[in-house]
This record gives sequence, structure tokens and C-alpha cells, in this order.
Amino acid sequence: MQLPNRIAAEVLGTFWLVFGGCGSAVLAANFITTNGSTPINLGIAFVGVSLAFGLTVLSMAYTVGHISGCHLNPAVSVGLCVGGRFPAKELLPYIVAQVAGAIAGSAVLYFIASGKAGWSVGEGAGAFATNGYGDLSPGGYGMVQCFVAEVVLTFFFLLIILGATDSRAPAGFAPIPIGLGLTLIHLIGIPVTNLSVNPARSTGPALFVGGDTIPQLWLFWLAPILGAALAGFVTNTFFSKKN
Amino acid sequence: MQLPNRIAAEVLGTFWLVFGGCGSAVLAANFITTNGSTPINLGIAFVGVSLAFGLTVLSMAYTVGHISGCHLNPAVSVGLCVGGRFPAKELLPYIVAQVAGAIAGSAVLYFIASGKAGWSVGEGAGAFATNGYGDLSPGGYGMVQCFVAEVVLTFFFLLIILGATDSRAPAGFAPIPIGLGLTLIHLIGIPVTNLSVNPARSTGPALFVGGDTIPQLWLFWLAPILGAALAGFVTNTFFSKKN
Amino acid sequence: MQLPNRIAAEVLGTFWLVFGGCGSAVLAANFITTNGSTPINLGIAFVGVSLAFGLTVLSMAYTVGHISGCHLNPAVSVGLCVGGRFPAKELLPYIVAQVAGAIAGSAVLYFIASGKAGWSVGEGAGAFATNGYGDLSPGGYGMVQCFVAEVVLTFFFLLIILGATDSRAPAGFAPIPIGLGLTLIHLIGIPVTNLSVNPARSTGPALFVGGDTIPQLWLFWLAPILGAALAGFVTNTFFSKKN
Amino acid sequence: MQLPNRIAAEVLGTFWLVFGGCGSAVLAANFITTNGSTPINLGIAFVGVSLAFGLTVLSMAYTVGHISGCHLNPAVSVGLCVGGRFPAKELLPYIVAQVAGAIAGSAVLYFIASGKAGWSVGEGAGAFATNGYGDLSPGGYGMVQCFVAEVVLTFFFLLIILGATDSRAPAGFAPIPIGLGLTLIHLIGIPVTNLSVNPARSTGPALFVGGDTIPQLWLFWLAPILGAALAGFVTNTFFSKKN
Repeated sequence: MQLPNRIAAEVLGTFWLVFGGCGSAVLAANFITTNGSTPINLGIAFVGVSLAFGLTVLSMAYTVGHISGCHLNPAVSVGLCVGGRFPAKELLPYIVAQVAGAIAGSAVLYFIASGKAGWSVGEGAGAFATNGYGDLSPGGYGMVQCFVAEVVLTFFFLLIILGATDSRAPAGFAPIPIGLGLTLIHLIGIPVTNLSVNPARSTGPALFVGGDTIPQLWLFWLAPILGAALAGFVTNTFFSKKN
Repeated sequence: MQLPNRIAAEVLGTFWLVFGGCGSAVLAANFITTNGSTPINLGIAFVGVSLAFGLTVLSMAYTVGHISGCHLNPAVSVGLCVGGRFPAKELLPYIVAQVAGAIAGSAVLYFIASGKAGWSVGEGAGAFATNGYGDLSPGGYGMVQCFVAEVVLTFFFLLIILGATDSRAPAGFAPIPIGLGLTLIHLIGIPVTNLSVNPARSTGPALFVGGDTIPQLWLFWLAPILGAALAGFVTNTFFSKKN
Repeated sequence: MQLPNRIAAEVLGTFWLVFGGCGSAVLAANFITTNGSTPINLGIAFVGVSLAFGLTVLSMAYTVGHISGCHLNPAVSVGLCVGGRFPAKELLPYIVAQVAGAIAGSAVLYFIASGKAGWSVGEGAGAFATNGYGDLSPGGYGMVQCFVAEVVLTFFFLLIILGATDSRAPAGFAPIPIGLGLTLIHLIGIPVTNLSVNPARSTGPALFVGGDTIPQLWLFWLAPILGAALAGFVTNTFFSKKN
Repeated sequence: MQLPNRIAAEVLGTFWLVFGGCGSAVLAANFITTNGSTPINLGIAFVGVSLAFGLTVLSMAYTVGHISGCHLNPAVSVGLCVGGRFPAKELLPYIVAQVAGAIAGSAVLYFIASGKAGWSVGEGAGAFATNGYGDLSPGGYGMVQCFVAEVVLTFFFLLIILGATDSRAPAGFAPIPIGLGLTLIHLIGIPVTNLSVNPARSTGPALFVGGDTIPQLWLFWLAPILGAALAGFVTNTFFSKKN
């Protein structure tokens, strides 16, 4: 498959990850109806958002995995590169494609969300599904803990990706542990950073919210890439076939 | 497999999609009990309804996928046709079968739901699991945004179907990303249009509710079919084996 | 595999279905804690119970599917028999094993549940996870609608089982649509009958609750077996390889 | 694969099980926001925690299953040993690795959780995701019932592991029933013991909470190992290929 076609797959796939994952949070996490005077929450809450993020990756991995490898995430591209599964010379076009897809997905989501009377993109922790630490952490977690959480969670995300796509693992199944692994990662960490493990996913919504979310983006580029690179190194060192 | 047998599969499968998906919404989304004076919602809410719709397709795809291809949706039939995977001459019988199954599923659901004292089919947004925009959107989203949401979500649904059933994707797994992809699509979009991406699924319940749901049906035929056709075109253009 | 070993598998498997499915309902559906004066429901509600029932079957089908076929349900055994997949002469021992496993699972569940101070088996709709119609339907659904619901839902359960285990369906996947199909069936029908589609599952808890649940058991034997037999007939007629 | 590399896999895998499973409970089970004066629980509750524990195992089994067998649990190692699938001489290093991973996972979780102002590890039932009986049972269940629950649930967990990895079961699928089986086990039993079936998982958090959780650890070593050994025996006796 030629590079332009693989780039198209990364753009569409990352659009889906951000539109679907962030969209579930923005549109459906919180939905109140009433039964008489009793308020009833029909919203999907953090469980639904976790499921949504994971299923974007599970579904796209079966859709474009055979086209582009379905990274959808600069940290994944870096981790695969360190792990010897992806050529360094393609890192830049892949990452540009992922960020472009994330921004496009955020833009379409913004347009749809604006169709509700009185809606605004908001500000503060978790606004428009942005990631953040300190004052912008949904649960108010400090910067250092948020950094550690993103490193550890991305480390395991890449460990799963590298392990499940190893030729010794059962063929064809990898999108299931990878997608549901991302669901698991969200089940753990949404209250901490609103959960990124993906610099492109963090960048898209932040551009629409602005304010303090932009100066916090460094963490959501640095920590995931660090964790991913570490997983590439550990997998190569301990789990390669030569051991 | 002869056409009549494939038609039978489409009727039964679409019955199941509508009876099961809409049934979960009508019968179980909202169920209040009390613990002393504290109301407790045991209902399945939007997460459960999303899971139900996806599992109707996942289960039927393994059941009749080898019989009829398990479209269960006029937009899917059109998208597969544009993508070169389904003959145009069979579009009409397939679509008639899907609509017939959707109506039958709605009728049986209506009968069961009526077994609860005081139940009525209702009116207004989401009544009897109908789709709608504007005043009939569960979250009050405007028509244009509802249209865009249905186009985008059906586009990705067909992208997944065409990609996951490609001969380069792992064999046998396709019903998992397709079914869980439909779950994901509902996790995103129930508050917007009560989520269709399927003209037959929209038509069945609307016939039992009537009122303003009927004049809104055009959107739930046009937008999904448009999105689906676009996905067929994009898949052919960018992701076919010749690239 | 000899009959006694297959019988052991059916006993253990049905124990698991009833202990796990009904256990999730009895022990975990409803669990209130407080945050200051705000009551918070951490319970698994109908979504969790639906998932639990489905996962008992998914897990057991991979565990003893190659031993006994993993029916765990008299209606399944009958449906497979009508569909030509199971010999009539083994119906009786299988059904006896299933009922025995269901009773044993209910007994162990009863013992564990009784370990909570003040717990009693209860009475009325849904007590100890019993099935019921009319006054004993969780949502108060009438007998005829409950009967129709059990027929229709068991019909589709068997359609899935017969289709997903057909030699033309992808090999090895069948427990996934069958198990998650049972989850779907519960997402639809818990408010109607507390959901059976399985005479053994209905019989076990009823023996511990007694009262009006016993005279209602006829429906939960008759309706599921009727639906299952119908699915065997339909599958043979419309979807066999000769078509 | 050399023993040290397999040990590394068990350390990392058990870290993930405890960090992810217990982390979801500590960080995300309970998360209250408000809509005006209405409190809304966005937390993942017991359903989310159940899903998280299962997905740690599902994801790791595809990641390091081909490295170490992915036990992550002393009871699993013992059950596999009794079932003739794991050499007794490697029991000790595996169990040491599992406990070390569990402690490390708990430590990192402790650090992250401490990043929220006012957080403390807590005491009493379920504090920091500890297991317990009697006063330390989330639902106040007595010791004997807790013991029986842990024996029965670990018995079925190992039955699933031994059955799904049998050479007669479909190849490659085992992590799905094993992981989702652990989800099911949590859906049943969190209110009883906060659910262990894994002595390493119980030991990690207890070391950070101290108090009465330490003298209760005996049950969470004895009961799971007993249930697991029983499953090894039953599988060998009734379900081996010679029957």
C-alpha cells in the first residue's frame, strides 16, 4: 500500500478515535431526564466513554489495520518505531496525519454539539473532553501524579500492542486486547487526566477550548511518548524471540 | 443460497435488530425501584441500549452472515452496492425485506409493551424508540446537525463493514467490529437523533407512533444512505488492493 | 466422550449459569453506599446482570463445549434435537442434569446470600432472581405478553445457536454470539419476566422461594421449549445447506 | 523462553492486574459531579470495576501468554500444576514474581491516588480495594460464606482456564472466556469479599492499608488455592481426553 493511502487511513482512523471517543463524552456522558420529580441519569457516564474509546480502536484496527497498521496515535508510532516494527522515516507523515485527523474530528464534533440550544464548549476540567492536570484534572490530581499515570498507562498500552501483534500471539485477535485494553485504561484514568495516552487526541479538543488547555499540552505529548518508548525498549529486551 | 432463503434471513435479522434494539430502549432503559424512600434506577440507560443494538448485529452476523450477508439495513445494502460487493438488482428485494422485518419487529414489541398496565406508545422525542430531529431529538439538536451526525456515523459504519470484511482483514472476526462498532455509534449519538444509521429501523417504530415522526422519516432515509454511499466510494478509491 | 462425563459437564455448566447469573442479581444488582448524605448506587443493575448471564454461557461454552456441547438449558437441548443436531435419546439425561445443576447452584447461592445479616429470600416479583408473570413480573406485564416474550426470545436464542454453530459459519467463534446474544436477550426482557429462556434456570430459584413462583413454572417450561422447537424447524426449513 | 524472562512477564502482568483492577476501583468507582443541585454519579461502579479486572487479564493474556502462560495469580499457578499443565518446581518463582508485581502495582497506584487533595488510603471494608470478610466485607457477609464464595468462584475460574486452553477447545480464543470470566466473577462477588480469587491481588493493597486486612489475608490465600486445586482435580478426572 502506498504511503498516501496509508496516510488517508491514519487521518480517517484518528478522526474516528477523536470524534467517537470525545463525542461520546461530550454528547452522551451526562443525560438527565425525569420521572415525575425524580431525576434519572440515562447518560453513559465514564463506563460508556471508556467503552467508546476502546471500540473506536477495535473497530478501526479491523478496518484499516491491513492498510496502515492503524496507529491513530503518535505515541503508538513512536513505540512501534523503538520496538523495531515501524521505520523512523515514516514517523513524521504518520504523526502529521494523526494530528490532522484529530483536529478534523474535533471540528465536526464541535459543529454537531453546537446544534443543542444553549451549548457552549465550556471551560475548566474536562471541557469538550480535553485532557488536563491540576486545576484541569477532573478529580483535581496534581501534575506529577498525572504525568506518572500517563507514562504508566501508555507503557502498558504499547506493551499490549507489541505483545498482541507478535508473531507468537494468536493471529487475528490483536484488535480485541488492544481496543478493550484502551477501554480498561480509560476505566482507570478518566478521573486523573480525563485520559489521553495519545498526543493527537489531546491536541484536537484543546485547540477548540483554548485557555489553559494549550499550555498543558506538553504533558500529553511528553508522557505518552516516554511511556511508549519505554515499552518498545522493554519488549525488545525481555520478550523478543531470542530470549 | 436461493434469493427467497436470503430474503427470509434479512426479514428475521432485521426483526431481531428492531425488536431487540428498540425493545431494550422501550422495555428496559428506564426502570425505577425503591430502597425505602431512595429511588434506584436499575434500568439499562443509554449504555445498555447501545450494547443491545450492537449485539443484535453481532449475533445475527454469525447466524445468517453465511446465508444473506446479514445487511439488515438499506443503507448497508446501498453502501455494499456502491463498494462493488452487492449486485444492484437485488437492492430492492433486500430493502423490502428489511422494512418488512422492521415493521414486524415493531409490532411484536408493541404487543409485549402493551402488557404493562397504563402503558401507551407515547409521543415526543424518543417515544417508542423513534428517531427524530429538532423537537423530536432527545437532546433537542437541530436538523442540520442531526443530518450531519447521521451521515458521518453511517459513513464510518460502512467503512468498518467494508474494511472488516475485506479479504486482507483477519477471517471470521468481522461481526465483532461491526456489531461493537454499532454499539459505539449508539454511545455517541443517542442524544442527537436517538440514533438510526438505518432507514428500516427508523421506519418500523415511526409507523406505530405516527404524528410528527412520519414527516421526519426522509432524513433517516437520506442521510444514512448518503453516508453509506460515500463510504463505498472512499473505500474503493483509497483502500482497494490496487493501491 | 462418555455420557457420564458429558452429564458432569452439563451439571457443572448449569450450576455456573444459575449461580453466576442469578448470583449477580441477588448479590450485586443493588448496592447502595453514601457520600455524605448523597446515596450512591454502586450496584450492577440490569446491565450487569445481563452481562453476567451472557458471560456464564460464553465462558462455559469455551470450557465444556468440546465435552458436552454446553447446552445448560432444556430448551437448547430440545431446539438442537428438532434441528437435527442432538439425539432424542439423550434429551432426558441432559435435562435431568441441567435441572440438578440449577438446583445445586441455587442452593450454594442461597447459602452465600444468607451470610448477610438480615437477608431473607424474599417474595414477590424477582425475589431470589425468580421468573414470573403478572404480579410476579418485575414490570407487571401480563401473562400473555410474558408468554410471547419468552417464545420470541428463545426462538432467536436458538436461531443464533443453530446458525453460529453451522459448519458454514466461522469456526471457533460461536460462544461469542451465543453468550453475548444471551446478554442481549436479558437487556431486552428482564423487566418483563425477569428473563428465563431456560426452564432449568427458572426451576432452581423457584424451589427456594416457593409460594406463587411454583404454579407459574409451567410458562417457563412451555414457552422456551416452544420457541426453541420453532427455531429448529425454521432453521431446517430455510437455512439448511440444501437451499 | 528462559525463566528470568518469564518471571519478568509475570511481574509486569500482575502489576497490570492489580494496578488496573484495583486502580479502577480506587480512582474511578465513585465520581460525583453536579448538574445544578442534582448530584450525578459518573463513576464506573461495580460494573466498571468488574470489566476492568477482566480486561487486565484478557489484555495481558494476549500480550505475555506466549511468554509465561500469563498466570498472574498464585491460585492459577497451583491449579495448573494440579491439572498437570505447569511444573511444581516453578511454582515458587512464579508466586514470588506475582506477589512482587502486585506490591509494585499497589505502590504506584498509591502514589497516583495520593495526588488528589485530601485523599487517604482509608480503612474499613473495601478501603484501597482490599479484600475482606465480616466487618471488612463490603456487604457485611460472614466469614464462612466469604470462604465458600472464594472457593466456588476460584474453582470455576480455573475450570474455565483449564477448559479453554485445552487442545480440543478452539485455538487462540482462551483469553476471551478467561478474561470475561473474571469480569463475570467480579459481577457476582464484589459485595461479598470485594472479590479476590487471587492471593497476590489481595496481598498488595493490604500491605498499604494494614490494620485488620493483614490478619484476614489467610482466607484469600487458602480459599482461592483450595478452589483452584479442586478444579485441577475435577478437570483431570472428568474432562481429560481419555474419557
